[in-house]
Amino acid sequence: MLKFDEQKQIDSVNGALALRPQIEEIVGKICAEGYRNICWLGIGGTWASCLQAEVHMKEMSALDFFVENAAEYITTGNKRVGKGTIVILSSVTGSTIEMVEAVKKAQADGAKVFGYIDKETAALAEMVDYCISYPANEQLKFFMTADAFMKNAGEFPEYDAFYAEMDQYLAKGLVEVEKAADDFAQAYAEKHCEDQIHYFVGAGNQYGATYSYAMCYWEEQHWIRTKSIHSAEFFHGMLEIVDKNTPVTVFMSEDSQRKLSERVAAFLPKVCANYTIIDTKDYAMAGISEKFRGHISHLVMHAVTNRIDVHIERINCHPMPIRRYYRQFDY
Amino acid sequence: MLKFDEQKQIDSVNGALALRPQIEEIVGKICAEGYRNICWLGIGGTWASCLQAEVHMKEMSALDFFVENAAEYITTGNKRVGKGTIVILSSVTGSTIEMVEAVKKAQADGAKVFGYIDKETAALAEMVDYCISYPANEQLKFFMTADAFMKNAGEFPEYDAFYAEMDQYLAKGLVEVEKAADDFAQAYAEKHCEDQIHYFVGAGNQYGATYSYAMCYWEEQHWIRTKSIHSAEFFHGMLEIVDKNTPVTVFMSEDSQRKLSERVAAFLPKVCANYTIIDTKDYAMAGISEKFRGHISHLVMHAVTNRIDVHIERINCHPMPIRRYYRQFDY
Repeated sequence: MLKFDEQKQIDSVNGALALRPQIEEIVGKICAEGYRNICWLGIGGTWASCLQAEVHMKEMSALDFFVENAAEYITTGNKRVGKGTIVILSSVTGSTIEMVEAVKKAQADGAKVFGYIDKETAALAEMVDYCISYPANEQLKFFMTADAFMKNAGEFPEYDAFYAEMDQYLAKGLVEVEKAADDFAQAYAEKHCEDQIHYFVGAGNQYGATYSYAMCYWEEQHWIRTKSIHSAEFFHGMLEIVDKNTPVTVFMSEDSQRKLSERVAAFLPKVCANYTIIDTKDYAMAGISEKFRGHISHLVMHAVTNRIDVHIERINCHPMPIRRYYRQFDY
Repeated sequence: MLKFDEQKQIDSVNGALALRPQIEEIVGKICAEGYRNICWLGIGGTWASCLQAEVHMKEMSALDFFVENAAEYITTGNKRVGKGTIVILSSVTGSTIEMVEAVKKAQADGAKVFGYIDKETAALAEMVDYCISYPANEQLKFFMTADAFMKNAGEFPEYDAFYAEMDQYLAKGLVEVEKAADDFAQAYAEKHCEDQIHYFVGAGNQYGATYSYAMCYWEEQHWIRTKSIHSAEFFHGMLEIVDKNTPVTVFMSEDSQRKLSERVAAFLPKVCANYTIIDTKDYAMAGISEKFRGHISHLVMHAVTNRIDVHIERINCHPMPIRRYYRQFDY
């Protein structure tokens, strides 16, 4: 398989899962000291990951939490961010200007900041109150953090059972998904690599991934135009521009909002001949209980889209790290 | 001017402003009884209006408020909605299935519902706890409601001064905007009526309008493909697919997030030769104080886009009330 290092990927996921004692210690300390609310802070792809953590928590938790976009926060402010607020964020480079400014402002407003900063020497790593530096696996790190807060609040009684399965089966399960998805991914990439625009539809803890896959992968890295839309919103406008040839992909997850995407999947065949349904249910994930599949279906989808990316990159002869404009000049 | 009934539009806006004593009475009663939080509830265009009310309040208020999408609420739920929650919504038809179900669930969860239901005989009008029936002007009704809550909380000391100006100048000002914008709107419609895709960018209390203008007007009513993006998010992916010929329109408002859109407006000329900046600052709004312009710049923009719609509808020979699929069959 092209660009596939099975052991490296297993080690990466298991390394992220192994952060759990550190996460539990930080969250335990925060809970022991007391806090008022949780602010998931991001921009672009990291904002999208915040949306995923938010919907995951919304399903399970009565804690006071919300998502804030870093650029909006530094312009409009947010009176809910202050003393007693725990800001949680992730940054690969640790130097995104909006994030650096937002952390300064949040701390000035009285909040404490818990940051996953991949690069431990970055400016942000120095600034945050609690820091964990470990590469990649952003969504897993966020969900582990959300789960630790919910466990502390007595809202996740199956926490230990869930993570026992994760520790044992997640990493291996995800590489098996990549293998199982590869033929599909290649055919899909061949079919859609020259789309003039591609529509991605998703819901629940998959919505943030739908948004970021469209924008941060196809637009930013493949330079293919996309629109992403929430499955619920699809029926309130976007449906009108779908015709026989419109390329539409629905990301089907297994959480509570699955039925919103099922509605789109049932509608499309009536008006469109160029749609694709990617359903995480089609992938085994040996060892993971049925009841926990919803919690991780965004990771399963990510394993599938990983393979699509590898093939599009090759077919389009367009290396994904190249940027036209991003950080290429001052703007 | 095509499809322009000045007096009718003036009467429509003034009629909405005249709802203020009713709104103040309902909000006063709610505040006297006490409430825990405010949930702005919508789907599609009405969800977008909720986003506008949210960012307006975020700038001014420490009240506990949030936005919920009706379809997400009826699938995932939201533990913050319960006893002490005031759900605020708007519905033109009063029959949108997701909204009806969401109101039932919110009331079952213990919340009270304050609905603007245009059609007073609709199912929703019967169901809500507080109802005002008055056609159109959704955003104005929402902002008046938000303002009444903030006034009650002592967060809007200039409330009386602001509404004295609104009552006297808003309606007339908005029709003058339509007149001033008409030539631009016609030229813009002629240039973009056959776009394969059009990008709309906006921020602040204009972001919801950007989202709904793209989806609920161009997609749903003109059948022209669009993508909308928040000005802050533009720089985290979408910028890469802009080239010389890409049609991009930036909605510039006058609230705190104006600078996020200014950044996009400054960037575009470097990479694109097919962009348009629509800036509410270019429209007079006689009698409205400078300090209040941010509060109403989404209404100014709406007056401009009204004129664009009239011209696109004529040029494209496509009556806006026609739907391809929406409510045309079961789905």
